[in-house]
This record gives sequence, C-alpha cells and structure tokens, in this order.
Amino acid sequence: MDTDMNRFMVIDGGVTAPGGFRAAGAHVGVKKAKKDLSLVVSDVPAVSAGCYTRNIVKAAPVLWDMKITEVHGAVRGVCVNSGNANACTGERGMEDCRRMAMALGGAVNAAPEEILVCSTGVIGVPMPIDIIQTGIAQTAGALGAGRGDALSAAEAIMTTDTFAKEAAAEFSLGGKTARIGAMAKGSGMIQPDMATLISVIVTDAAISGGMLAKCLAESVDISYNMISVDRDTSTNDTCIALANGLAGNPEIISEDEDYAVFKNALDYVNRKLAMDIARDGEGASRLMEVTVDGAASRRDARLIAKSVVGSSLFKAALFGADANWGRVICAMGYSGGRFDPDRVSISFSSLVGGAERSVLLLDAGRPAAFDEGAAKAILSQKEVRVDITLGDGAAAATAWGCDLTYDYVRINGDYRS
Amino acid sequence: MDTDMNRFMVIDGGVTAPGGFRAAGAHVGVKKAKKDLSLVVSDVPAVSAGCYTRNIVKAAPVLWDMKITEVHGAVRGVCVNSGNANACTGERGMEDCRRMAMALGGAVNAAPEEILVCSTGVIGVPMPIDIIQTGIAQTAGALGAGRGDALSAAEAIMTTDTFAKEAAAEFSLGGKTARIGAMAKGSGMIQPDMATLISVIVTDAAISGGMLAKCLAESVDISYNMISVDRDTSTNDTCIALANGLAGNPEIISEDEDYAVFKNALDYVNRKLAMDIARDGEGASRLMEVTVDGAASRRDARLIAKSVVGSSLFKAALFGADANWGRVICAMGYSGGRFDPDRVSISFSSLVGGAERSVLLLDAGRPAAFDEGAAKAILSQKEVRVDITLGDGAAAATAWGCDLTYDYVRINGDYRS
Repeated sequence: MDTDMNRFMVIDGGVTAPGGFRAAGAHVGVKKAKKDLSLVVSDVPAVSAGCYTRNIVKAAPVLWDMKITEVHGAVRGVCVNSGNANACTGERGMEDCRRMAMALGGAVNAAPEEILVCSTGVIGVPMPIDIIQTGIAQTAGALGAGRGDALSAAEAIMTTDTFAKEAAAEFSLGGKTARIGAMAKGSGMIQPDMATLISVIVTDAAISGGMLAKCLAESVDISYNMISVDRDTSTNDTCIALANGLAGNPEIISEDEDYAVFKNALDYVNRKLAMDIARDGEGASRLMEVTVDGAASRRDARLIAKSVVGSSLFKAALFGADANWGRVICAMGYSGGRFDPDRVSISFSSLVGGAERSVLLLDAGRPAAFDEGAAKAILSQKEVRVDITLGDGAAAATAWGCDLTYDYVRINGDYRS
Repeated sequence: MDTDMNRFMVIDGGVTAPGGFRAAGAHVGVKKAKKDLSLVVSDVPAVSAGCYTRNIVKAAPVLWDMKITEVHGAVRGVCVNSGNANACTGERGMEDCRRMAMALGGAVNAAPEEILVCSTGVIGVPMPIDIIQTGIAQTAGALGAGRGDALSAAEAIMTTDTFAKEAAAEFSLGGKTARIGAMAKGSGMIQPDMATLISVIVTDAAISGGMLAKCLAESVDISYNMISVDRDTSTNDTCIALANGLAGNPEIISEDEDYAVFKNALDYVNRKLAMDIARDGEGASRLMEVTVDGAASRRDARLIAKSVVGSSLFKAALFGADANWGRVICAMGYSGGRFDPDRVSISFSSLVGGAERSVLLLDAGRPAAFDEGAAKAILSQKEVRVDITLGDGAAAATAWGCDLTYDYVRINGDYRS
C-alpha cells in the first residue's frame, strides 16, 4: 500500500495537528460530571464535506450540517455536545442547533451558517440549551492548538466510549508538508451506513470541496461503513471533514498524484478510528477483523464480511473463545452475498505470545481437523482475524467488529439512567 | 377474526391430535442425556408441503425435504434428530439423510422418498449416523397415538429450548371434524425467512398438495417469518406440513369456505408456536409483541415491526425495563420501511396485576410526558406490547421477539461444549 508515490507518516495528535486549527473540551452540565462539550475552530474558512446516517429518522444537527456540507460551504468551526442526541425533538431541535451555531459563531466572528453542529446521547429529550449556549461561549475562551487541547476535545465527545479516539498523519503535497488530524466517538448503536457516529476530520491541505467530498465518501466506505457493533444504525451518524488550505500546497482539484497521497493518508486515519470504534464497542473484550477474498465482486465481499462481524451468535462465540466456524458460514449464507459453500475456506488467526498463529477450520468446503486448544488460544487474544477465502473471483473486503459480552447487556439494559 | 364461517376450537395436543398420526421421542445418543430423536408417522400416505430457510448454506436434510415437498410428494413419516444439524457435511450429509429415511421407511414399510428428515444442532460435525440409524429402528417400535407420545416427540426436537412447543386445533369441514396438530423448536439462530427452525404440522384434513402449500406459505409469512431472536437465519430452518385426509371431508382444492376455515386454524397453530419460540428465545425473560398500524403498505408495516423486534439496543432496554422509545424509532428509521417521523405514535402496554396498562411515549412525533414508574411496571412484565401507529395508511403487521439478556451471552458464549 505504501508506495513512494503516496507515502505518509503516522504522527501523534488529533484535531490540532494540522495548521490553523484550535480545539477545546469542557464539562458544561449536559452530563453529570464528565466532559460534554467539544469545540474545533479553523482560523480561516475551510471547505467542508460530510457523510451522514441513512436512518430516515435524522437528528436535528444532521439536518443542519447536511445543508452546509452539501454545497461544501465555508466553515469556521464545529460544536459537538455529548449526553443528548437532539433527535426526535422537532422544530425546537432545529432552533437549538441554530443557537449552538450562533454561540460558537459569536465567539469566533463567524455566521451561524459557518458552524457545524453535532450531538450524541439520548434520543427524544429536549436539549438543556441555555446551559450549552453559555458553555460554548465560556469554552471558546479556552481554545488552543496544543496536543492536550485536541485530546480534551476528543474526550468531550465520548458517551459510553472507554477511551478517546484520535488519529493524525503527515504527508507531502507539491513540496509542502500537510497534515490530517481527526477525532471520533462510537461505542453503541454502531452499524454505519454512509457514516459513523461522530467523526471530525480536519486538514490544512488545500483541496476543493468536490474533491474533499469524493475522497471522504470513498474513505468512509472502506472504514466506518465496514464496522458493526450491534447492527443498529443511529439517528445521528455524522462524519465531517474540513480543509483550510493553510499548508499552502497547490489546491487538489482532480484525481492526480496529490489526491492519491491525500486519500491514502485519509484512509489510514479513518481506518484507525473505525478499528478503535469497533475495539471499543460497548462491552467489547475483543476486536475482530474479518477479511473476505476471492469474491466474485466487491459487493459480495463487503456483504459477507459485514454479515459475519454483525452476527450475534458468532460475536457471543468469540466472547467465549469458541471456534464455532459454523456460525461464520451461517452468517455468510444469509448475508445476501453470493458464494459457493463448497469452495469456502475459513481460518482464525492472532498473535499468541507475540507469534502469529493460525488455525484452518474449513478447507474448500470440508471441515478440517483442528486442535481445539490451539484454536482457543488464538481466539482468546484481544485482536482476532477471521480469514475467509471464496475461490469465486478476485474481489476482497475487510470489516471490523467486536464480541458480544455480558457488559453489552449491562450497559444497554439501563442506559438512560 | 373468529367469524362463524371460520371458527375453530383450541384443543390440548400436538402431532398426535389428528387421526392416523403416531409419534415417539427417545434418547439415542446424539446428545449426552436428553432426548434427541423424534418420529412422526402417518398410517396412510399424506400430501406434503414445506417452507425452508433462504440461507444459501442449506443443511443436507433441507435439500432432502425440498425435493420431496416441492412436488407435494406422498409422505409416510418425519424423522428429526437434535444435537447435530447435519450442515456443511457435504456428500456424506446427503447419504446420512438417506440412511435416516431408510431406517424409518424400513420400520413402517415406506420408501425412503416417503420420509422427511430434519436435523438441528451444531454445524459442521459429521453425524453419528450408526447410532441414529439403530435408534430410529428401536424408537419406531414405541410409536403411539397418545397425548404423551406427541409430547415426547416435541421434547426430542428441543435444543436450548426450555419448554416443548405444541399446538392443536379442531374444526369442521363439510360436516366432518378435522384437526391440526403441530410441534416446533426454536430458541437461537432465529430470524426465519420463509420458515422457522423446525416446525412439523400434521392434519387429517383432506386438502390438495397445491392448496396445502399455498396455505402454509401464507401462514408462515404471518407467524414464523415475523419473529426474531438474534437476526441470525439458520441453515436448517424447516417448516413442513402433512395432510393425510383421514377426516373424510371433501378434499379442499380451491380457496373456498373450507379453505378459509382450515387457514384460520393453521394460522392459530403457527402463530401460537411462533410466539412460543419468541418467548423461549435463548436467555429471554420477556416476550415482546410489536404491532405497526397505519402503514402505507403491508411491506412497510412488516419491515418496521421486524426491525424493532430485532434491535439489540431495544432488546437490551427491554431486559432492563427501560422505556427507551428512542431506540424504537431509531430501529424503525433503519428498517427500510417508509414512514413520516412527524406522524409516529408509540406506546407500551402489558397486564400489570391483571389489569391492562398502557403508557404513551411519542404522540404524533412529539415526545409525551410519561410516568417513569408506570412505564417501568409495564415493561417489567413477562409479555410486553409495543404499539406503533404511523398515520400513513391502513396496512398493519405484528412481529414477536424477546429481550437480550446476560443468559443469551452465557448460552452462546460456549455452545459447542
């Protein structure tokens, strides 16, 4: 993947990694004690692009952002609250978006139409908008470009996430150094369709709105759209990207070499965040990566990979480190993807004590004799790979998910209180 | 529904309720100690019909039965083993089906092509066919027409089911008394598509193969196809019906009044068994019934109702008796069914201390103020109804499911051992 042409460097950082972006996170009182307000601001107007939930019930901030990003509108900032999704809140919900946008816009001399708004949390409860509005004005005073500012912003968008999710990369465009930095949150209600829960991506690269939107859509399709925690597509899924051009590179306006470099770095950032979301799925104890190759088409490979990561039965088997490959082929069979069961091979692998270990369970349609103890050791690791080979063609896809644990039930059995 | 024209009487009984059917259940050694072999035999050849899984990975017995029932072949018996699904077993699996059919056929003077075969249990493990074959011959000697014989057969098809599932009804066709009796098993891997896990329905009514197949398909569509435990469609889903004509009624050969009477009784039997399967979903502590009305089309109503019963998040909320209606409308929104979120009403209801109690949560798109204590009391019952009104048309549908509990994770975390 990393050819000379599209090389990038992984760097430590989040939304303040690219030039001209400042961030802040704070507790303003939507939640009891944890941080619940996150701000990201660009010093200059940035072109914008977005991918959103395909759930027909869309939260107010999704509708707000769609209007702005569908024309790649110039954006000065993003305002995210956690603790309340502002979904199923009617006209009041749209008005609350406007008030949030006005509060941040007022603090950075921008119009409300230059501010994107995201919300995540409980559905159907009116927003404590006065608290949020006041909180935005106060928190804007703390905006900073440091590493800690990015982390604080990433922490403030968490709901049941157990760790903050950030990624950053540096690369060269026309002799100039450019960066992408991002933060995301996930955890539950994760079955993205055109987007993930909330992902905010910023870059100082100069790129046209159209190219940014194209690149984002393609990247989302192989990252956030390939993860599942519980097959529930949220009302609030939002992935937005801002590009402020401060790197000073010649603007990317076509699918040239610079586009390939940018896309490669963006794919890394989004895949890293997507995997972190899957790894941190509600109650999860293991990350699973399912790779399907030899498929007749990319669509078949995607459907099959996503079906396996979504199967409650296989997820529960993974929790128990039980090598139940029958549940894998069963999930493949109802995926809607085409394949010939008589040509399927399935193996599980992981790093056991630092060494790569693999066990073959189904060999071209025939159950293979395997060592149960070795399989158990492989499945007991924190990261487990399921490799499926179809023998029907040359298409491939990878999806990520997690195991189904007692803690998923505990967390979701009493979420609102 | 119960007009004079299509009246039936619910009776106690199972597969031996109709005339001319005998049954037996036994432990032959596929499982460690529990019953694992079930036989149902008709004294005379019966016309047959079947509905099967749409999973493209079909177990050997599904392929065996499809060949026979697609031509409504004359059938003398059904042989079911639990403990091994005979799925992903290749040519050996088909040969094992034939050996099971020959064993039962030999005992009742029938050709193997007159015997249907079902298997349920673990996938991908060769059948202990010698044990099963010997067991069939021995168990055939114990076939009987008593109430206990039917119950024993129903017990022998259970896997992780916690209770045997039977239903029976009596009705009048052309002055003659006819009966339908049935048994089913479910529990896990329940997201039927054209069928349920295993359901064996027998009747002494005289009905043509074509009419039996039509009636069965329609009935399956509003019963087994409307339940979900875990959104996993099994490789072995099988619903078969046998009609031996011993009631002596004029054969049903068109959609006349007798057909309507028969259909109504069949619907009762299948709905009762489907609800029992949902109620007894792996680890379930509550049955949920979701009714959608006011939909623009039946397809919309069905998609929406099935999506709600399948949502892991709402299932977990139900376990916690948490009135999280946001998860209901979220699941509606990604169902693929059309509706206008601004016109949706949602209420929960159940019998609390013998009295019908209801709480309205969403009123034509607006969150309603409700008493949390009253909602908790309603959701804490064994049977909870979710009523969704769309205001988009006149179509309706009902689906059934269960809550997601710690026990689901426990049961499926270590199934094979």
